[in-house]
Amino acid sequence: MGPMVENAGVEFLRDMVRSGGRDELVEALKALHPADAAEVLATLRPEEIARFIEILGPETALPIFEFVPFEVQKETLEYLPRNVLVQLISNMRPDERADLVEEMDEVTKDRLLALLIQAERQNLLKLLTYPEDSAGAYMTTDYALLRPETRVRSALDQLRLQAPKKETIYYAYVVDDARRLVGIVSLRDLIMARPENLVGDIMHTNVIAVRVDMDIEEVAKEMVRYDFLAMPVVDGDNRLVGIITYDDIFDVMTEEATEDMYFLANLDTDEKVSSPLRRSVVLRVPWLMVNLATALVVSYTVHVFSDTIQQFVVLASLMPIVAMLGGNAGNQSLTVVVRALALGEMQLKGNWRIVLKEAGVGFCNGLAVGLVMGGIAYLWHRNLWLATIICMAMTINLVVAGLFGAMVPITLRKLNLDPALGSSIFVTTATDVGGFCAFLGLASLFIHQLLSP
Amino acid sequence: MGPMVENAGVEFLRDMVRSGGRDELVEALKALHPADAAEVLATLRPEEIARFIEILGPETALPIFEFVPFEVQKETLEYLPRNVLVQLISNMRPDERADLVEEMDEVTKDRLLALLIQAERQNLLKLLTYPEDSAGAYMTTDYALLRPETRVRSALDQLRLQAPKKETIYYAYVVDDARRLVGIVSLRDLIMARPENLVGDIMHTNVIAVRVDMDIEEVAKEMVRYDFLAMPVVDGDNRLVGIITYDDIFDVMTEEATEDMYFLANLDTDEKVSSPLRRSVVLRVPWLMVNLATALVVSYTVHVFSDTIQQFVVLASLMPIVAMLGGNAGNQSLTVVVRALALGEMQLKGNWRIVLKEAGVGFCNGLAVGLVMGGIAYLWHRNLWLATIICMAMTINLVVAGLFGAMVPITLRKLNLDPALGSSIFVTTATDVGGFCAFLGLASLFIHQLLSP
Repeated sequence: MGPMVENAGVEFLRDMVRSGGRDELVEALKALHPADAAEVLATLRPEEIARFIEILGPETALPIFEFVPFEVQKETLEYLPRNVLVQLISNMRPDERADLVEEMDEVTKDRLLALLIQAERQNLLKLLTYPEDSAGAYMTTDYALLRPETRVRSALDQLRLQAPKKETIYYAYVVDDARRLVGIVSLRDLIMARPENLVGDIMHTNVIAVRVDMDIEEVAKEMVRYDFLAMPVVDGDNRLVGIITYDDIFDVMTEEATEDMYFLANLDTDEKVSSPLRRSVVLRVPWLMVNLATALVVSYTVHVFSDTIQQFVVLASLMPIVAMLGGNAGNQSLTVVVRALALGEMQLKGNWRIVLKEAGVGFCNGLAVGLVMGGIAYLWHRNLWLATIICMAMTINLVVAGLFGAMVPITLRKLNLDPALGSSIFVTTATDVGGFCAFLGLASLFIHQLLSP
Repeated sequence: MGPMVENAGVEFLRDMVRSGGRDELVEALKALHPADAAEVLATLRPEEIARFIEILGPETALPIFEFVPFEVQKETLEYLPRNVLVQLISNMRPDERADLVEEMDEVTKDRLLALLIQAERQNLLKLLTYPEDSAGAYMTTDYALLRPETRVRSALDQLRLQAPKKETIYYAYVVDDARRLVGIVSLRDLIMARPENLVGDIMHTNVIAVRVDMDIEEVAKEMVRYDFLAMPVVDGDNRLVGIITYDDIFDVMTEEATEDMYFLANLDTDEKVSSPLRRSVVLRVPWLMVNLATALVVSYTVHVFSDTIQQFVVLASLMPIVAMLGGNAGNQSLTVVVRALALGEMQLKGNWRIVLKEAGVGFCNGLAVGLVMGGIAYLWHRNLWLATIICMAMTINLVVAGLFGAMVPITLRKLNLDPALGSSIFVTTATDVGGFCAFLGLASLFIHQLLSP
């Protein structure tokens, strides 16, 4: 990390922005990676960032500005003079530009679109039409193109010319007259080939590409599978429309992991640790209300056995043990299955085997914790019937935990819903109801034996 | 995905391996990406895979073999004749080779080491010394090297020569006589520069590198931060020892997400959905036993209030509601904080603010669900005291949930433990104990009012 990423750096940058010495600023920034410069920059106020861009000029400032967090970018744009704004936006990477414009209000968006040249406007409008989680929404349209009949020598010349404007030139995409993707050639292939060879002779023709409407999580899986640096994106007619690069996949993988974890904990993906209190409250309370509804079902289950509890109040203090272990075991099964579904480790068919296995694990572990708990219950209350009943209830409940832990996410997936979404509430409710029914039900059946063991 | 990735593909491949027609096999494989070919290959028996490598020759087979899952690789090696084995292992990427050798038993490892040439043996032994989760364990030693005094023209020639053996030539690392990293130059820079320029003049000198002993998760964060395709790894004297590429980071990010999710659910990272039942049982049962111990604490809490429950048994049926909502809210806070810690969104200092915020969210949401539940309790049991008590208990319990949900992972991190490890058991125990104490404690205090409202 650069030396400027200190508190001193912020003051230094602020001073520079105030005094407006461009050369000094350029000199100071040279020593920093754009990502580090952006970190300092993001701590300034939006109007100061705007001033920074003006001083430096949009072209020099852009590589840094692209690393500034999205929210800060948006606010900064409002403080930029029109001509600087247009230059900045025109030079941005098409995918990042589309992401930014997408978030603008209609008035700002229209004003901006009017300022762009025709070709860029159309490109932008096109990118804006792709659904949020599709390959189209993540791809860039700045990729290197070659023709099969080009010689390697001039292909290299062409890439040299394209280099400053393209996101990557390490892969070049070979298209025919109709812009259909016919091959891929890496820069490595090109510099290793003889200059007089044709691109068409050295290109790889068994092209792997994804459709523009493919879900981005699936695209990520494919890229990880093939270790691709960039993945070409084609439309329904196999015409090349963009590429997705490895750094987009870094972001997708992070978002995806957050989503799975959040869904398992009944959280909204919009929430962050830094969200204001009010926002966190609003985002979490709906899930708690859903849970309250299912908790009432659990409560009613216990209510049914009120008489038994009143006759033998020890049951009330042992109940939570059955519920807690069931909840924990259910969560184990749930998480293993949710993760396997996310990683594509499970097929759509033959999942009953996994459900059976989880039930089997539940049986074994239920018996294990049940026997230990039975022993403890006997030592505590000197009641063999109680010990037997809690052992049986825990075994039954952990089987329930395994069954529901596996079935709930598999079912959600079959319904085309996210396998993690709300699933922990279902599973916990199943294990609570199952556990209390088993424990209190058995206790009711054998209440006489319990009372005079 | 290639056409061979069908059941027919497996039979076809098996026939080929049996009949031993090399040319046919090479022809058929041409149409497939190595990752796809490896998928079919992995379905064969290890001895068949070994035969496949023999027929194809280790050099041609290697790009495919490298995509075969690790476990299958290991088994296959046992069936390879010594000379083929040596050729295969010698040509493997150094990082993958080290991973594979690491898993071998001592006898196989020693036998193999004896077969390697001196330089490769030393390289391998060096890589094996790095701790499992360090940059050293993930890096490859096949990177492209340049010297600052080389001209761009001959640098390109050098890279052309190095290309077939190096993992990436898109970045070349510039070192001085002592192999200290002094600059980085991308292939893009080189092909855009004038041939007579010196590498030293065009290279980037504000080099970002990581230390060989850095935790791989931190390395991943740095690479994501800078959008790096490859990250140089240096030793304590700033000498270049390896590079980590974007595809390693794909794997690290996947493993890391799995780890966080698994730890939150009290699972061992060795477990998979496909683990045999016996293994799943053995891996899960220790956590369930830990949970059983904490569940006994919860049970004892309830036991203390036995008399109150016996006098007013409605409490037993409402208890689970207080516990369930507290568990859910605690899990929400826990997950938000664990994720923020994993993404590096939280500093080490000033975390009391986050703890306070989570407690505040707990208070607001506790009041929200408490008021609703109070209303329901009143309608159900026509007891205003009961309604008031459950509302207060839920509010208190959700504050406890917020406090512990935030404090547990922050404390674990401060103790240099994984913030997610076992944390859900702590938090659930805290919310269960807190919830039952609040609810049953208040009920005991106001037992007369509850009985004659």
